[in-house]
Amino acid sequence: MANKTLLVLFLFLSACSFIHGNKQLHSLVRFYKAKMSKDGTVNTTSHFEPVQHLHNSATLIDHGAQKENDKIKKLPGQPYVKFDQYGGYVTINESAGRAFYYYFVEAENPKKSSSLPLLLWLNGGPGCSSLAYGAMQELGPFRVNSDGKTLYRNKFSWNRAANVLFLESPAGVGFSYSNTSSDYKNGGDKSTAADNYVFLLNWLERFPEYKGRDLYLSGESYAGHYVPQLAHTIIYHNIIANKTLINLKGILIGNAVINDETDTMGMYDYFGSHALISDETSYDIRKYCNFSADALTQPDKCIDATTDADYNIEVLDIYNIYAPLCFDGNLTIKPKKMSWQNIDPCSDYYTYAYMNRRDVQDALHANVTKLDHDWEPCSEILKGWHDSAATVIPLLKEFMKYKLRVWIFSGDTDARVPVTSTKYSISSMKLPIKTKWHPWIHQGEAGGFVQVYKGDLTLATVRGAGHQVPSYQPKRALALVKHFLSGKPLKDSSRPS
Amino acid sequence: MANKTLLVLFLFLSACSFIHGNKQLHSLVRFYKAKMSKDGTVNTTSHFEPVQHLHNSATLIDHGAQKENDKIKKLPGQPYVKFDQYGGYVTINESAGRAFYYYFVEAENPKKSSSLPLLLWLNGGPGCSSLAYGAMQELGPFRVNSDGKTLYRNKFSWNRAANVLFLESPAGVGFSYSNTSSDYKNGGDKSTAADNYVFLLNWLERFPEYKGRDLYLSGESYAGHYVPQLAHTIIYHNIIANKTLINLKGILIGNAVINDETDTMGMYDYFGSHALISDETSYDIRKYCNFSADALTQPDKCIDATTDADYNIEVLDIYNIYAPLCFDGNLTIKPKKMSWQNIDPCSDYYTYAYMNRRDVQDALHANVTKLDHDWEPCSEILKGWHDSAATVIPLLKEFMKYKLRVWIFSGDTDARVPVTSTKYSISSMKLPIKTKWHPWIHQGEAGGFVQVYKGDLTLATVRGAGHQVPSYQPKRALALVKHFLSGKPLKDSSRPS
Repeated sequence: MANKTLLVLFLFLSACSFIHGNKQLHSLVRFYKAKMSKDGTVNTTSHFEPVQHLHNSATLIDHGAQKENDKIKKLPGQPYVKFDQYGGYVTINESAGRAFYYYFVEAENPKKSSSLPLLLWLNGGPGCSSLAYGAMQELGPFRVNSDGKTLYRNKFSWNRAANVLFLESPAGVGFSYSNTSSDYKNGGDKSTAADNYVFLLNWLERFPEYKGRDLYLSGESYAGHYVPQLAHTIIYHNIIANKTLINLKGILIGNAVINDETDTMGMYDYFGSHALISDETSYDIRKYCNFSADALTQPDKCIDATTDADYNIEVLDIYNIYAPLCFDGNLTIKPKKMSWQNIDPCSDYYTYAYMNRRDVQDALHANVTKLDHDWEPCSEILKGWHDSAATVIPLLKEFMKYKLRVWIFSGDTDARVPVTSTKYSISSMKLPIKTKWHPWIHQGEAGGFVQVYKGDLTLATVRGAGHQVPSYQPKRALALVKHFLSGKPLKDSSRPS
Repeated sequence: MANKTLLVLFLFLSACSFIHGNKQLHSLVRFYKAKMSKDGTVNTTSHFEPVQHLHNSATLIDHGAQKENDKIKKLPGQPYVKFDQYGGYVTINESAGRAFYYYFVEAENPKKSSSLPLLLWLNGGPGCSSLAYGAMQELGPFRVNSDGKTLYRNKFSWNRAANVLFLESPAGVGFSYSNTSSDYKNGGDKSTAADNYVFLLNWLERFPEYKGRDLYLSGESYAGHYVPQLAHTIIYHNIIANKTLINLKGILIGNAVINDETDTMGMYDYFGSHALISDETSYDIRKYCNFSADALTQPDKCIDATTDADYNIEVLDIYNIYAPLCFDGNLTIKPKKMSWQNIDPCSDYYTYAYMNRRDVQDALHANVTKLDHDWEPCSEILKGWHDSAATVIPLLKEFMKYKLRVWIFSGDTDARVPVTSTKYSISSMKLPIKTKWHPWIHQGEAGGFVQVYKGDLTLATVRGAGHQVPSYQPKRALALVKHFLSGKPLKDSSRPS
């Protein structure tokens, strides 16, 4: 019966996000369906353990020459910029023919790039591309115009604060591929973390000036799994090697999938408190549903209530409940006038068109093996997912023990993995509070609200932002990441600290 | 002790709204402070009763000639329009020298003006001007440019659906005045309803073609009191006269002050569910505060919690929690480019400048007595308020009995009189549900959500709108009022009804 409820929920959500074109959302929803159907295709019970024996053949490649080859001269339709960009492949497993595509933008001020940290950004899904979202619609230096062939500047790009590395992961996502087709069926949290780790080791061989540089891992949505699991793997191998192989300093995750039970309950509670569903439906979900990992079935009253809720939000972009929808993803002959304040809801279409141009792929050093499928914002060839822990909270607790910087942020108009869910998840950790919930001020306004827990773990909201925070609130998102990277608390400058 | 809490709340809110320039908000807050301080200045205990003996001397005036005199040739800086506008004074009490200023815009299509209903709009406060807000920043045909001297069209003006009458009430508000200065100190709900009724009777004498026309009363915020009380007065006098003196058909109130206890509780709950205050503070307010009319004191824990909450929202525009603030209300030499999608947060300043121009006042036939004070968006000369019922729910119930159309709407990003409050208030009426909570669709998107109660009472949200709904969501607000006036339910066109 649980299957029935969740099937209804996720089928409809898939349809909804498909219509409105955002494939990242589609993927997360499809995945949740598989995960929560409990039909055995996704193992949710195991606590995440890093892979101990990594296939390391890739490190043999001559990275010195490769780095120069990866340098991007200029992207088609790109405005002039003063920083360097690189794009290319890092072999993950030579025998399987598995390689990951990365896009790297150095810090905007070349003088600063050598002192600023390295920040890896991962998108979720599973199956969605960090090039599609992070790089081209969220925190990257460019966004794609509505003509699908020219770019405009994102003035609030995160490479104003760091050297930013976008990775398409796992194999099957974006330009990343494997010559072993079973890799597309046998993926999961563990193999992704292992591959991401191998990628990082090898990427640092190719960019040795970043070896030893402070590294931060960041991402959103299902990267709430990827980021902590990669961090855990890095820590594990540093301990085994008894030296700092990778100098990880902290993690930053937004609107993140953290803990299935509280994530799901928080989503429905958010629907209720934001007047999207009726009080009666909210009440029934609270009373009759059990979203814990061990609930195998749900009573009919829960199924009816969740079906009703799902029906009610069908016409919304639940990834930003106040945002407009995309009704016309057609390219325009001339670029529409863009505003940094309002991301175009059809951006996914423009990015798709741009990334599938041959000249763009050549400039990016992408698709060198001539893949037999289009580049997609979210993979359509990735099938199956073997393991996905029901919670990453044990990892977060571990990071706090190891004094890793842990920041969790939430765009407060996202209803999919909303601030309510994130608050419930952190609340379940029962951490003592260091500084209580207060606004953080950016340019005289509340950028959002923040609470710091003893440990140190920071929870911050970004006011007026949906699921993809830097898309909707680029200024506030940049302020947030600057504070995160500097380790400075988000302060309420309007009153004495 | 109650006083202390509420004093802190309202003093801060006053300061906040003052800084950011929206005087409507300032007034409501100042008033609530007086009302809830229970120091005897505002009588909250009496059930509203209409004044039975009205001073009717004003009806003797020759209205025929007056109507032509009231016709507005053209407002300074006004773009060309095809409908007629009128502005002028209606004497309310000749011996006291009390007169109300009105601004009237006929329906946009002159052919339609004779068939479309008459809609009165009232703003709240108490003390705020319907010219300042309703007419010039919300649902009127023009908005003031940032130069403070030219106007631009509001394409979604409500005179596309009705002949719209804006009234500055009570005396002391905007251009409305009294030569009896004690009138400014002795106002209250009852005298305002009586004066508004006398205004309407006389206005209909001046515009006899609207006698017998379907009349709807509408307004926002504290007009949640004005509108039902005026409706009640109209009904009462129709019954006494045993004929339809005024052909009232329905009322429409938005983000309306309805029931003090649930309004206050709902406000704090909204702060909590929208992650503006901490879970701990929300919990304490729920547990320790008693906002019922008979609570004379509050425990220290309630005072601490509400103080903490107030502190946290100080930096927000709580009338639209996602909106920008006004930092620079200075006029510009040339008008800034305006967008119907985003109202300028400094609009109050532009309207103030415009309304205090002599040429504008002459064109409006306003300030003919040369008032000794500036025109203000919210009155600074109105002092004291004698009576304000703790609830208008008995009136709403009465209207349902008399088959009056009752629609209550709520911009869902207002935290001051939020949708949570409105839901609690309606919920306390324990009405059976006719059609359950569902989205209403406008141009393919959710305009908001709606529930209809048996009776008929309609509760509708407007998605992404703050306290002043037509300012933030002009398209959706126009769609809403069209449905209200036609009596057609707001439908979810995406599924079978």
